[in-house]
Parts: sequence; C-alpha cells; structure tokens
Amino acid sequence: MNKGIFITIEGGEGAGKTTLIERLVHTMQERGKRVVTTREPGGIPIAEQIRSVILDRSHTAMDARTEALLYAAARRQHLVEKVMPALEDGQMVICDRFVDSSLAYQGHARGLGMDEVWSINRFAVDGAMPQLTIYMDIDPEMGIARIQSSRGREVNRLDLESLAFHKLVREGYLKLLEQFPERIVRVNAENAADVVLEEVILTIDRRFFHS
Amino acid sequence: MNKGIFITIEGGEGAGKTTLIERLVHTMQERGKRVVTTREPGGIPIAEQIRSVILDRSHTAMDARTEALLYAAARRQHLVEKVMPALEDGQMVICDRFVDSSLAYQGHARGLGMDEVWSINRFAVDGAMPQLTIYMDIDPEMGIARIQSSRGREVNRLDLESLAFHKLVREGYLKLLEQFPERIVRVNAENAADVVLEEVILTIDRRFFHS
Repeated sequence: MNKGIFITIEGGEGAGKTTLIERLVHTMQERGKRVVTTREPGGIPIAEQIRSVILDRSHTAMDARTEALLYAAARRQHLVEKVMPALEDGQMVICDRFVDSSLAYQGHARGLGMDEVWSINRFAVDGAMPQLTIYMDIDPEMGIARIQSSRGREVNRLDLESLAFHKLVREGYLKLLEQFPERIVRVNAENAADVVLEEVILTIDRRFFHS
Repeated sequence: MNKGIFITIEGGEGAGKTTLIERLVHTMQERGKRVVTTREPGGIPIAEQIRSVILDRSHTAMDARTEALLYAAARRQHLVEKVMPALEDGQMVICDRFVDSSLAYQGHARGLGMDEVWSINRFAVDGAMPQLTIYMDIDPEMGIARIQSSRGREVNRLDLESLAFHKLVREGYLKLLEQFPERIVRVNAENAADVVLEEVILTIDRRFFHS
C-alpha cells in the first residue's frame, strides 16, 4: 500500500519522547534514510485552526465528546496532508502521539471509553494505522518529577493534572499494549536515554530492515 | 429520561422545511406548548466557530472525513448546549436537520458510507436521538424548481449541485426510512403546504398526545 514506514511514539508526560525522537531521527539520517518527524497539528492550516478551537480558553463549555471529535478531525487532516504524502514518497514518518494518545487520555483516563473513542478514530484514520508504535513506559511519579526538574520546557495543563490521572493514562496504555501486541512495543523509559534509543533502534531494525 | 419532545425535520432542497417549521411552531404555541426551534450551529459559540472552519473558502484542501467529523463536533456541542437543556426543561424542540442529513448527504450521496458516518454521529449523539423525524419527501426536480422560482431565498452551493446528486440524497433518505421505520415518518412534500402541515400535526398528536 504505502512505500514508506509509519512509526508513532507514545507515552505519558516526562517519558522522554522528544529526546528519543530527536536522536532517532539523527541516527536514521546518518544512515541515509529520509525521515519526517511531525506531531499534530503539524503546521497544516486546517488542523491548526481546529486545534485553536480546542485550545481557545474562552471555550470553557466544550463537551468532552466535542473535543474528541475535534481531535479526530485535526488528526484526519494532518494525516491526509502531511503523513500520507510522505509515506507515498517512500519516507519514514515518525509521529509524536497519534490515536493511542486519544484512547489513553480521552478514552480511558477521562472516561469516555476506549471503544467509543476508537470508533471515531477508526473513521478518521480509515486504515492508515502506524506499522509500529513505541510506547515509552514510565512510572507517572518519575515522569512528573522529570518534568519539574527539567529546564526550558513549560509545564502544561496535562502535566499539572493529578497523579491519579497520570496513573489512569498509563493503565490505558497498558490495556492498548495487550490489545495490539503486534503493533505496540513497550520500552522501559525509566532507563537512561542511550539505553532507550538503542532498544528502539533494535526494534525498528528487526521490524523493517531484517537485521 | 427527558421530559421534553425532540423532533427533527429532514428533506432535500426545496421540500419546504422552513415553511413547515414556522407554521408548526405557530400551531403548537397557539395550543400553549413551549416550543424551541433550532438548526445547527444555532448561535452556540463553539458550534459556530466549528462551522466557520467548515465553510472557510480558503480550506479547499479539506478532506471529506475531516468535514464529517467537524459536522459531528458542531452537532454535539449544539445538542449539549441548546437541545438538551430545553428538553430537560420539558419543552418541545424542533430541529431543522440532524443526523439523517449527514447520513444522506455525506454518507450516501458523497459516498463516505452511511454506516461509517453513523459511527461518528452515534458517538456525537450518545443516545440523544429524536423521538420523531419528519422526512419531507419531494421529487428532486420539483424541489430545485421550487427554489429557483422562490424569492428572497439565496440559492446555495448545495442547491446548485447536479440533479444526480439530489437523487442520491433522496435515495439515502429512503434507505434511512427503511432502516428506522419507528423513528422516521415520510410525508409527501409535493402536496400543498396546508396538507403537509395537517399531516405532520396529526402524526405528532398520535405519537405524543394520544389524540
């Protein structure tokens, strides 16, 4: 179907997704691979405008289902305009968060239901699921502590939510891991960044480059 | 569940929905009923802002699935902020177009698939379906001719689409009628407005007022 490779990176706050992605891209580019990294809304005007509706602070009355539908809409447009063309061009696309974030955060932790949130994401994705998802698993207390001690990284609304919420997010991810064992690979994000990177590269090599 | 009565009015272009709704409200108010009429986005700020993203003429790249998700998002917010409170207050809510429009237009006529479009609308509506839907059925040629001869009513983009499209819309509605025979009642909108109104009032009386 696609000539490229579609990989998504998932995990709770403070798991180290940003660092992993930067180093992963660097490694792949050194090997001569053409890599695109992105995260929704990713500069796609329609997706950016949808995201701005979600983030508008005057929209305090926004219903949780409205929000989930808007995330799915922005996801669809970003997928069609940015991810799919790169895949068709044979590139490796590394996307920071994708459907699993919606399932873990909105579906499980906020209580909308993972099956429910999956139903609208299935419509949005229309079969274009990642071939591999890396789940960076970290104890939520350690994740939050990491964020608080890091510099140059603003603590956002999600960071500040209760630890109980972050535990639910992790529970959601672990359910997904059980449900999609072929697609999702767990890495222990409590390890040092070097160790995590090595494990992820090994996983990618085994999966796509048969080495 | 709800104390009010939720009725939706559906039909192709030129079927006479606007006229029917005006006269229906008048009749019900004369009987002392408290009636709210609405149509999405219905002045609800979040729904209006979502609708403006859909209608933005610079958004020529908008994918059909993105659009369907945005319609469902605006529907959800309008439902939560306007329809549900009126129903909980015991009022009769008459809504000009609802899920069936999405199913007939996006699902059937535009080819996204009625089951597919239903999956996201089921999420948006979350059980709050109308107790009664009036489908104003008219031959598409007659409907378009009516619009062209009427005054003070701008012909919009949907009016101008090919007759073949409008025939598909009707086909979609007729499928829905088969699928939901309890909820949807067909009225012959080719009849005079008086006849249509009388038939609709009879239907409402039988359904809700046991007369």
